[in-house]
Amino acid sequence: MTLSAVLTHIDNDLPNATNRLLQLLRIPSVSTDPAFAADCQSAADHLVDDLTSLGFEASKRQTAGHPMVVAHCDGDGSHVLFYGHYDVQPVDPLDLWDTPPFEPALEETANGTVIRGRGSSDDKGQLMTFVEACRAFKAVTGTLPAKITVFFEGEEESGSPSLVPFMRENAGELTADIALICDTGLYGHDTPAIITTLRGLLGLELVIKAADKDLHSGMFGGLAINPIRVLADIIDGLHDETGAITLPGFYDGVPEISNAVRAGWDGLNFDAAAFLGAVDLSAPAGEANRTPLEQLWSRPTCEVNGISGGYEGDGFKTVLPAQASAKISFRLVGTQDPDKILATFQDHVTARLPADCTAEYIAPGGAPASAMSTDHPAFAAAQAALSDEWPNPAVFIGCGGSIPIAGHFKEVLGMDALLTGFGRDDDQIHSPNEKYDLESFHKGIRSWARILDRLRT
Amino acid sequence: MTLSAVLTHIDNDLPNATNRLLQLLRIPSVSTDPAFAADCQSAADHLVDDLTSLGFEASKRQTAGHPMVVAHCDGDGSHVLFYGHYDVQPVDPLDLWDTPPFEPALEETANGTVIRGRGSSDDKGQLMTFVEACRAFKAVTGTLPAKITVFFEGEEESGSPSLVPFMRENAGELTADIALICDTGLYGHDTPAIITTLRGLLGLELVIKAADKDLHSGMFGGLAINPIRVLADIIDGLHDETGAITLPGFYDGVPEISNAVRAGWDGLNFDAAAFLGAVDLSAPAGEANRTPLEQLWSRPTCEVNGISGGYEGDGFKTVLPAQASAKISFRLVGTQDPDKILATFQDHVTARLPADCTAEYIAPGGAPASAMSTDHPAFAAAQAALSDEWPNPAVFIGCGGSIPIAGHFKEVLGMDALLTGFGRDDDQIHSPNEKYDLESFHKGIRSWARILDRLRT
Repeated sequence: MTLSAVLTHIDNDLPNATNRLLQLLRIPSVSTDPAFAADCQSAADHLVDDLTSLGFEASKRQTAGHPMVVAHCDGDGSHVLFYGHYDVQPVDPLDLWDTPPFEPALEETANGTVIRGRGSSDDKGQLMTFVEACRAFKAVTGTLPAKITVFFEGEEESGSPSLVPFMRENAGELTADIALICDTGLYGHDTPAIITTLRGLLGLELVIKAADKDLHSGMFGGLAINPIRVLADIIDGLHDETGAITLPGFYDGVPEISNAVRAGWDGLNFDAAAFLGAVDLSAPAGEANRTPLEQLWSRPTCEVNGISGGYEGDGFKTVLPAQASAKISFRLVGTQDPDKILATFQDHVTARLPADCTAEYIAPGGAPASAMSTDHPAFAAAQAALSDEWPNPAVFIGCGGSIPIAGHFKEVLGMDALLTGFGRDDDQIHSPNEKYDLESFHKGIRSWARILDRLRT
Repeated sequence: MTLSAVLTHIDNDLPNATNRLLQLLRIPSVSTDPAFAADCQSAADHLVDDLTSLGFEASKRQTAGHPMVVAHCDGDGSHVLFYGHYDVQPVDPLDLWDTPPFEPALEETANGTVIRGRGSSDDKGQLMTFVEACRAFKAVTGTLPAKITVFFEGEEESGSPSLVPFMRENAGELTADIALICDTGLYGHDTPAIITTLRGLLGLELVIKAADKDLHSGMFGGLAINPIRVLADIIDGLHDETGAITLPGFYDGVPEISNAVRAGWDGLNFDAAAFLGAVDLSAPAGEANRTPLEQLWSRPTCEVNGISGGYEGDGFKTVLPAQASAKISFRLVGTQDPDKILATFQDHVTARLPADCTAEYIAPGGAPASAMSTDHPAFAAAQAALSDEWPNPAVFIGCGGSIPIAGHFKEVLGMDALLTGFGRDDDQIHSPNEKYDLESFHKGIRSWARILDRLRT
């Protein structure tokens, strides 16, 4: 049995695979901060070298932003494309990390061995599960069980500005029978999951400007407009008392979930108290009269991801600031149109803008929600493969996150996408002390070996 | 005529006096940031040395915070205390300064020569007007025209935590016939002003905390509470549509101005359009149905001086922050009680605090408003002296700022205070590119010489 030999090889090679992942994690490829641009190049070079050593024809492709990595290798059976991203989130607040974010290490914890460091779970650890599965097949059989195209980007955490143009320009090279995407998590500790819906995203920074300089609040306070107060009014007006979003037409295109899906979700026995309790919260805070899973998977949201204005240092400064800004994002579902929602948001701002204030919108952009084609044969194959590997059978679930790549594969390349991954809820992605369970890494590699094996047949 | 000789000496010595001020301005005595504690000590040492060189018995007095400077010199006539502060505001945003804030220099502008640098107007330039007036009297007459106590503090820009305890412990040494305070401005370009009312101040930092870490807005958004939205709701709820503050009982103790005061203010022909136009604003933004001068001088305010939360760096990070905070201040008038208002503010916050959120109040504190005893003979003397020096006669005005020292002199030492000063509206105090007109400095020194001369008679 080839698969059995490949799995045994994976087990024996795990220490080496782990060391290879640690090498990649040491590269601080933060995409959103221009200070790390050279590190993004280094991460791409590292991956090109690794894929080349496996027999891929691999290259780094420059873009207007951070480079893409594209690699091809012939093999038996169908043609699959694998997607992951080598860029990582910023690390601030740095003082909340117990270990340096880019000095990754194995760490024994009460819940088992973890790989600690920025990017371990999102997404370097996950993309390496696929690379290591390929390495094991090559080592055992000398070939791959499918024709494989690997496609890594370096701008996933900063809005992927180069992605669609690159896909358009290289459509022929990137089109395969199915796209496999590894940037999501398990459902519960021992239950693998395949994502069937993804929320879309509209994000922007709103800057409110008033006076031409910061003012003394004693000299001007009471007479001069305060942009922080204007911003607070704009933000506070985005939701009503029930937690619903007030923008006119915002819920156009938001579908109610079907009875079948609802029954499936009910069967998951989602424990909202445990989910929230893990981060020291207790009460679902979204729309009233929606279940926690609806709030997370099937309902759109509007959040403020950052706010800034005036004096933010130690102590006090009685200033009326010249400007205040907020980073605002909408998670979208169904057929909600990001462009239309941006326009109604701008109307909302304009209507609340007092005399002397201006509003600037920095880098508005987004992507609609996605629904997967679960009737593609890869879904049944992957479900069976994952169920073989993990203690519990694989489930089909929604996802609250936004992974626009799935929609882009469909729209630009006409290619269906299958998303599965091995992160856990406590991985602290986007937060200090990010980790990836060694078990996630190990069984993730084994999972891809099983999926590739099934896709061959 | 002694006064005439003193004024001539001041004119001739102006270049030396300016150089002495530049020396003091080079010391970055930012009181609110602990990083500059040693510089605050240096500024106090510098002033002790200078006053000692004038024949004062001067000493630096340590406190729990930054030190006080106290100096005594015998002289003819009455006993006056002069107050100023050697600490300065922080300089951020540093990139908006055209010259380094602590490398002061004379600069020729379209409006005349200015002394450019942090603290030039608030308050080092102003306190040196008095010191230089004393120096001129000493140089010309060998003595001072009054018994003088000089009292400089170094915590005025950071809430003066050590001031009242120090005044209590040194009441005998600090009590004089009148306190002279130089920390305010001219009324209009050529019209000196004596302050008759000062707004009080209540300031605090409010921190809203929710989850125990920053969360991924895709994974948690819709289900987890967002502290930025909670903070926006709290801030937005502090004012109603008319610009009035909503806290119950907030306006208790806010007096209507008398017809006499209103007539006096009307006579000032305050040009709100020009005042706001100077900072690129046009519309009075305070309470509806209040004149601009009422909004500035006789009405209380609530402002947000800074706000912070979530991801504030370049680019975008889809985080739900663990906390958000705002620096909030109230300007108080009449007999408004800071403690009572703090309690109602905390009630306001508590009523808007959702499940899982906590509110923390950092360093709440303040002082009530002050009204001066304008029947003290020093007021008529100073008005006459100032009217002799400047093109227009001196006026009695209100002040929107908060200079709690005046109230403390009255409450702790039973001493009346007279506030006058020579800053101009375009001095950009608390902002980048702070300046003090060389004319303000020159005529300010001459003004104090005239006032001291009048107080002697």
